[in-house]
Amino acid sequence: MRFGLNFFPSFRPRDLSTAEYYQQVLTLCERADALGYSSVKAVEHYFHDYGGHTPSPLVLLAAVAARTRRLRLITGAAIPAFNHPIKLAAEMAMLDNLSGGRFDAGFGRAFIPEEFDAFGVALDDSRARFEEGITVVKRLWTEQRVTHEGRFHRFRDVHLLPRPVQRPHPPIWIAAVLSEESFRWAGEQGYHLMIVPFAGSLERTAAFVRTYREAWARAGHPPGREQVQMSFHCYLAETHAAAVEGFRRPVERYIEVFSEAVGSWEGRASGAYRGYEKMVAAVRAQTPQSLMDGRVAFVGTPAEVVEQVRFVRETFGEVEPSMQINFGGLPLAEAQRTLELFAREVMPAFVETHTGAS
Amino acid sequence: MRFGLNFFPSFRPRDLSTAEYYQQVLTLCERADALGYSSVKAVEHYFHDYGGHTPSPLVLLAAVAARTRRLRLITGAAIPAFNHPIKLAAEMAMLDNLSGGRFDAGFGRAFIPEEFDAFGVALDDSRARFEEGITVVKRLWTEQRVTHEGRFHRFRDVHLLPRPVQRPHPPIWIAAVLSEESFRWAGEQGYHLMIVPFAGSLERTAAFVRTYREAWARAGHPPGREQVQMSFHCYLAETHAAAVEGFRRPVERYIEVFSEAVGSWEGRASGAYRGYEKMVAAVRAQTPQSLMDGRVAFVGTPAEVVEQVRFVRETFGEVEPSMQINFGGLPLAEAQRTLELFAREVMPAFVETHTGAS
Repeated sequence: MRFGLNFFPSFRPRDLSTAEYYQQVLTLCERADALGYSSVKAVEHYFHDYGGHTPSPLVLLAAVAARTRRLRLITGAAIPAFNHPIKLAAEMAMLDNLSGGRFDAGFGRAFIPEEFDAFGVALDDSRARFEEGITVVKRLWTEQRVTHEGRFHRFRDVHLLPRPVQRPHPPIWIAAVLSEESFRWAGEQGYHLMIVPFAGSLERTAAFVRTYREAWARAGHPPGREQVQMSFHCYLAETHAAAVEGFRRPVERYIEVFSEAVGSWEGRASGAYRGYEKMVAAVRAQTPQSLMDGRVAFVGTPAEVVEQVRFVRETFGEVEPSMQINFGGLPLAEAQRTLELFAREVMPAFVETHTGAS
Repeated sequence: MRFGLNFFPSFRPRDLSTAEYYQQVLTLCERADALGYSSVKAVEHYFHDYGGHTPSPLVLLAAVAARTRRLRLITGAAIPAFNHPIKLAAEMAMLDNLSGGRFDAGFGRAFIPEEFDAFGVALDDSRARFEEGITVVKRLWTEQRVTHEGRFHRFRDVHLLPRPVQRPHPPIWIAAVLSEESFRWAGEQGYHLMIVPFAGSLERTAAFVRTYREAWARAGHPPGREQVQMSFHCYLAETHAAAVEGFRRPVERYIEVFSEAVGSWEGRASGAYRGYEKMVAAVRAQTPQSLMDGRVAFVGTPAEVVEQVRFVRETFGEVEPSMQINFGGLPLAEAQRTLELFAREVMPAFVETHTGAS
């Protein structure tokens, strides 16, 4: 079983400076590389403390690439709707070269109305832009000269540089959240899957993951080669009480900045985002306890977290947890403790699976 | 006197892979950081072996930031015409944070027609896009909420994240080449200057630099605080013959890929780029010997190069050479020899000036 890290910034300036946060990320990644973690994820968001400290996941991951040797680097997710496909394909190919072929290309639709407004992009076009963007990026990576006449972008006879290291191209991952259709589409296309499980809907998400795996197999992609990453907050300590107490403040900060960011949904509606107004209420109703009860966070002693990981594997099949360990402005030392305890006392319980899968 | 490095890729796939080139850059930068070099420059170009292996200077410089502690990192140049100003401001601010405030923001207009075509941008709009882009980036860095109604971009009430480390904002540099008006404008605005000197026009360029310094002072900017970087190819060896011979092949490659890239000027004309058709002929007429005779390359033994640097300082005043040391697919070992010889035997001859200026 593989275990990755997810660097989704969710702090206030009074918690931490952006420069300090980036240094945390680099320090944790260097150590994770040595400890046998599998991947590092960075997100593209703007303007809010919810993710907005990494408007370009590629810039952050380039720095991580320069400090690591083994970890795979994944955009979770890059947003075609906010990027010119030539630039996105080119920057991703740069990272694939910088990292010696360790890049995983994760794409998402985005969902915060304020971001769409700033870039002058209609929410209702987000799926069309997402699909056109991925198609064009893949063509630029694999064809020598690309002429594209799309709905959002047009160009003639473009030869992309640099060429990616991985052939035919870096693995493609899709962020899916609420719509079964998105899960099915990802499977049919042969793309890997990135999920954020929400408290209270684990069974539905598990059903969607089955839909994804079935669609993958039915479309004729190599059986069992599909990959699924799931995001979890993760906080470990030597005692149960210390873990629960340590988890509380930073995850409250995470919920606070998440609630603020989705606030721009108020009074908005889009047919392309059915259910998102409800999501805002669900985000705001979260508490540290509800995340633990809902089994969407790994919190506790190493022995307790072993059981929590086991539950996830039983529920979803073989997945790679993508873990947030320095959320909400946590001091470096606490994130380091989680990193070390997890590697030393949780990962060994899943070694056989990891060996089998690799 | 300060001395920087300029990583302008100009190799063929048969010379070097992109991944190998990036590893060269990181290896050379780590050592340059220890040897007392001042800055590292990366360029934004596309599609051609002339610069096209770094479509995003910021992605490459983020990797350099993660491997260095002292070097300043400069985009030379980033192109507002090809980037959304929110993304450009945000990515640059990320690099300023990643590097602990070591970022210099260099902007250029671009000049290769094929790049404009691919992005659907009119050559004739390049100055307007350049000026609007810089203005918006600076506002996003310095104002809490920006509403912009420009000719090319419009948005309301945007709060940029992250905020840059340097206050009020990272130093701004302008790439100027052929037009005295560009030099004067940069000085008036209080921007620093990046130049590529062309063989056969050193006197004219020197006059333009004087125009720049006068405009800076007349506009009331702090006297003597203007900075000028000039690009030079640089190849050192223990003997004159070895240096001249070693310089020849890679600089011929550079001239070859430069000629190819400017080929898209054939049959084009733009009032905004007066003189560029002539430039194409000038580029093609270059030879290794003409670059040395024209004093736009540092080639020779350390003692010879000391004299060449002295000539530059006498001609242009206090400038920072920004040196290409691994151009044209040069093997790492030759670039390392140049790096070491220059630091050990050329830089000491200019130490007093450096102390005086810093």
